Amino acid sequence: MFEAKLASSALLKKIVEAIKDLVTDAPFDCNENAVCLQAMDSSHVALVSLKLSSGLFESYRCDRTINLGLSLATLAKALKCANNDDTCMMKCEENDGDSITFSFTDESKDKTQDVVVKLMDIDSEHLGIPDQDYSAVVELPSDEFNKTCHDLAMFSDSVSILVTKAGIIFSGKGESGSSTVSYSPSANVDDEKNSVKLLVKDPVSMSFAIKYLNRFTKASSLAPRVKLSLSDDVPIVVEYELEENSYLRFYLAPKIDEEDNME
Amino acid sequence: MFEAKLASSALLKKIVEAIKDLVTDAPFDCNENAVCLQAMDSSHVALVSLKLSSGLFESYRCDRTINLGLSLATLAKALKCANNDDTCMMKCEENDGDSITFSFTDESKDKTQDVVVKLMDIDSEHLGIPDQDYSAVVELPSDEFNKTCHDLAMFSDSVSILVTKAGIIFSGKGESGSSTVSYSPSANVDDEKNSVKLLVKDPVSMSFAIKYLNRFTKASSLAPRVKLSLSDDVPIVVEYELEENSYLRFYLAPKIDEEDNME
Amino acid sequence: MFEAKLASSALLKKIVEAIKDLVTDAPFDCNENAVCLQAMDSSHVALVSLKLSSGLFESYRCDRTINLGLSLATLAKALKCANNDDTCMMKCEENDGDSITFSFTDESKDKTQDVVVKLMDIDSEHLGIPDQDYSAVVELPSDEFNKTCHDLAMFSDSVSILVTKAGIIFSGKGESGSSTVSYSPSANVDDEKNSVKLLVKDPVSMSFAIKYLNRFTKASSLAPRVKLSLSDDVPIVVEYELEENSYLRFYLAPKIDEEDNME
Repeated sequence: MFEAKLASSALLKKIVEAIKDLVTDAPFDCNENAVCLQAMDSSHVALVSLKLSSGLFESYRCDRTINLGLSLATLAKALKCANNDDTCMMKCEENDGDSITFSFTDESKDKTQDVVVKLMDIDSEHLGIPDQDYSAVVELPSDEFNKTCHDLAMFSDSVSILVTKAGIIFSGKGESGSSTVSYSPSANVDDEKNSVKLLVKDPVSMSFAIKYLNRFTKASSLAPRVKLSLSDDVPIVVEYELEENSYLRFYLAPKIDEEDNME
Repeated sequence: MFEAKLASSALLKKIVEAIKDLVTDAPFDCNENAVCLQAMDSSHVALVSLKLSSGLFESYRCDRTINLGLSLATLAKALKCANNDDTCMMKCEENDGDSITFSFTDESKDKTQDVVVKLMDIDSEHLGIPDQDYSAVVELPSDEFNKTCHDLAMFSDSVSILVTKAGIIFSGKGESGSSTVSYSPSANVDDEKNSVKLLVKDPVSMSFAIKYLNRFTKASSLAPRVKLSLSDDVPIVVEYELEENSYLRFYLAPKIDEEDNME
Repeated sequence: MFEAKLASSALLKKIVEAIKDLVTDAPFDCNENAVCLQAMDSSHVALVSLKLSSGLFESYRCDRTINLGLSLATLAKALKCANNDDTCMMKCEENDGDSITFSFTDESKDKTQDVVVKLMDIDSEHLGIPDQDYSAVVELPSDEFNKTCHDLAMFSDSVSILVTKAGIIFSGKGESGSSTVSYSPSANVDDEKNSVKLLVKDPVSMSFAIKYLNRFTKASSLAPRVKLSLSDDVPIVVEYELEENSYLRFYLAPKIDEEDNME
C-alpha cells in the first residue's frame, strides 16, 4: 500500500506544470524513503530527475517499492481540481493496482473531493547518473535565469554560456540582432535571495538549445534560486532545490557545433 | 412607452454575459411590473427564465405590455460601452418601435453615451412552467458549484448528482479517470455565505450534460448562492436569486441513459 | 558617434509598442538636439511624427546628423529585454555603422544586458508638415478618448466627429446599432487631469476610419491627456505630449464621403 499526504497541493501542482511539456508519461518510483521520477523528454535530449523525500510529506507510508505510471496530462487535470491550500492525500491500494486516488481537502469546508486516475504500464529505466565533479557551479535567482533564457530566445535558437571566475555570460546571436547578459559574482554574498555565486575550477564555454532551457525555467516558482552545474562536453544540470533534501533537476546535452546555431 | 433606469449597469452586463452563449435572440417581455425573458437554447435542451421586477430599477415606466426582441450579441456590445458604475437608462418610444436606446451616464463626468440598438421580431412563446414540488432542494455557494462543474468537466461529459439527507454528491467518470465531489450539510447554518443547506423529501439520483451546467455557472457573479431543485425525471432548476423578488433561472432536462455517458 | 541614455526604459518601450503596428521599418533621424521620426503607415493614410528632445535624456551626444533605420519588430524585441526601470543606453559607433547597441542596466544588480540590433537602409522622406491654424482644438483624458474609440468601433468602421462650442460629439452607425458619445466642456477646468477643454474658432464636422484612431490610442499610456486638432478637409492631429517639448503625433486624413461609411 502507498499512502502519502502533502500539507498543500501547491507543490505537486507546480512540479507537474513544470515537467508536463517535457515528459508525457511518467513512471514514479515509490519506496519507503522517497518518490522518485526519471524520464527523458520525447526527443531524448533532456532528462528530468525528481526526488520527493518522505520528509516532505505530512504522512508517508510505502510498504514495498512500487512503480506508478501516470499520464502527466491526466495528472495535471486531477491537480487542477485542487486549490493550492488544499491538503493532498494520495492512496494506492495493494488490491486495486490499476488506479491511484487523490483526495483534496480544505478542512474549513464541508466538502471532499476525490479524483481517481488510471495507472499505466511505463517502462522505467532508472539511469545511473554518475556523481560528477563539475568545472563550474553557478547559483543565481530563478527569475533572473528565467528572464535571461526568454530574452535570448527572442534572437536565437541557441545560447552560449561562458563561465569564468569573472562571471557568467549568456549570449545568443540571430539574423536581426544579438543579445548578451552578463552576471558578475555578487560582492554582497549575504543577500541570499538576489546574489550570484560562482565556484569555478576551470572556465567553461558551452552551447545549448534554448528551447529546452526555457522549458526548464517553468520550474522557477518551485524555488527562489537555481543552480547550474557545467563541465565541457557533459550535460548541464539545472537544479531547483526543494526542502528536505528533495529536488527537481534537469539535464541537457550540449550542442556540438556552436557555429551552426545561427538561424 | 417603456423607460427604465438601473442605478448601475453592472447587473445587466452580468446577466447578458451569463446567457448570451445559450440564447442568440431574446424576446424581453415588459409589463408594468417586470421585465421577463423566457428562451430555449438553440438545441432545445435548456431553458433560460429571467425576471427583473420593477423594484430593481431606480425608475420604471411601462405604459403597456411590449415585447423587445434583441440580439444578445448586439446587446452585449452595447453594454460593453458602459462602465460598471454608470447608470443605465433604457428607453423605447411608442412611435419609434424598431429600436431601443441605452444611455450610460457617469454623473461625475461631463459625458453622455447613447447606444441605439435595433429591435428584432422574435417569436415569444412564454411557456407555462408549472409550480413543482421538488424532491430535493440544495443551496450552496455559487463559486463552489462553479468550480465543481468545471472540475468534473475535465474527466466527463456528464455529471451524476445524488442527493440524500446525508449530502449531495457530484460525480463524473471518463476514460482517463473519475472525479467525485461531496458536500455534507453544514453544521453551522448561520454562515449564510458558505453553508451548504439541504431540504430532502426523497433521495434523487440524476444525470445531466455537464456542458450546460458549465454555461449556467457563468451567472455565478450575479449572486453569492445558487439553489438547485431536483426531482426524478423532471428538469433540474439552477436558480440565482436577485434582489426584489427577481431571479435568473436555468432549466435542464436530465439525461435518460446514465450508462451511456462515458466518452 | 551617437550615444544617448534614458533614465528609464519604460518611455521607449511604450513608444515602440504604440507605433509598431502602424509602421514596420522606421528611420530615426538623430541630430544634436533631438531624435526624430516621421513615417507613413503602410497604406499611406496615417503619419507618425515623433520628437524626443535631447533634454529627455540623462545624457545625449550626437556628433553629426545620422539616420538610424530600424525594424520596429526587432526594436520591440530588444526593448522587451529591458525592465521598465532599467536605464537604457543607446550607442552607435562611427566605424560600426551597421548596428546599434542597447544596454539595459539595473544598477542594484550585478548584471549587464546588451542587445545589438542590425540597422537597415530606409528611405527617410522628412515631410514638411506646415504649421496649421486649426478650427478646433480639444483636449481630453487619454483613457476617455481610448474608450470612446473602442466603443464606437463595435458598431461602425468610421467615426464622425462634430465639434462646436457646446462640446465634441463622436458617433458611429452600423447595421445592428449606433453609438454616440458627447463631451461638454468642463465647468471645472482646474481639474487638470479629467477636464475636457475646447477651443473652437469654427465648428468642424468630419469622418475618420476608426481602425486608425484605435491604433493611435495605443499611445494612451504615454500621457494622461490627448490633444485633437481639427480643421475641415485637413488631417486630424492626435497628439500625446511628452516632457521637455517632445511629442508623439499622429496625422490621419479624413474620409471624403461620410455617407458611404456604413457597413
